[in-house]
Amino acid sequence: MSTTPIITKAELLKHWQGHRALTRRVIEAFPEKELFEFSVAGMRPFGELAKELLAIAVPGLQGIVHRADGAYSENGLEGITTKEAVLRQWDEDTPKISELFNQIPESDFHVTFNLFGQYNFPIIENILYFIDNEIHHRGQGYVYLRSLGIQPPFFWER
Amino acid sequence: MSTTPIITKAELLKHWQGHRALTRRVIEAFPEKELFEFSVAGMRPFGELAKELLAIAVPGLQGIVHRADGAYSENGLEGITTKEAVLRQWDEDTPKISELFNQIPESDFHVTFNLFGQYNFPIIENILYFIDNEIHHRGQGYVYLRSLGIQPPFFWER
Repeated sequence: MSTTPIITKAELLKHWQGHRALTRRVIEAFPEKELFEFSVAGMRPFGELAKELLAIAVPGLQGIVHRADGAYSENGLEGITTKEAVLRQWDEDTPKISELFNQIPESDFHVTFNLFGQYNFPIIENILYFIDNEIHHRGQGYVYLRSLGIQPPFFWER
Repeated sequence: MSTTPIITKAELLKHWQGHRALTRRVIEAFPEKELFEFSVAGMRPFGELAKELLAIAVPGLQGIVHRADGAYSENGLEGITTKEAVLRQWDEDTPKISELFNQIPESDFHVTFNLFGQYNFPIIENILYFIDNEIHHRGQGYVYLRSLGIQPPFFWER
């Protein structure tokens, strides 16, 4: 395959990091207590969803880069019980995501990898899933914020 | 630019149509009345969100293909007042989306276009926005369904 790319590797990373910047603003918009306790219809609070996103991004990329198919786990995130701690981990992960992502050669994006020992798909699909899953849960967070009477950040802000 | 594409044009279309297939299942999961009347925290009902998605996909692609920057409009969708009508329009748009998308040359994805006379970005960003916006609103729909006591379709089903 050699043609004009419709999106470059650098652009996809920028796209993802832009989404992460918006998700960070959504985390920030929650009051401390509600971040970990509030939800609608028995779904997980947004703090739990944010921890899921943390458990996917860096560990998922580490798996891809090192071809290590360890299981998905939120172990290691138990200590994250405050908004400040979520945001600190979020910010620590930002450069790690770029560094790991940049280690994936263009030619590997169509290579199949068994992410978390469970999701056996081309690497591009795994990475698009990371982004889609973040947008999906953040959409859920927008409803929580509206239910709390809080104006969410603009969706197009990145 | 000429390198190994991390995602091809055909793959991005498949990715989008996969998301549309999931959104269709979310529309289907709503009872007729709740599709147009139910919401959480004063947000728009899911039927209105689905109409927004219909007003973006085909009209947006027509704008891109024909370089026509007419304003965003939901005119023409007023007649869609039943679940059956939403799904019929959804299905009619599926092949139109593929046909229009396929008319965009790879080399045009980095060309800037003033979508709806308002969003002046490279075409790839406009198209990613269509997909992201759909995932975002569908995430909102998942909360509505849960609030109605209805199990939403699995997120990974496409």
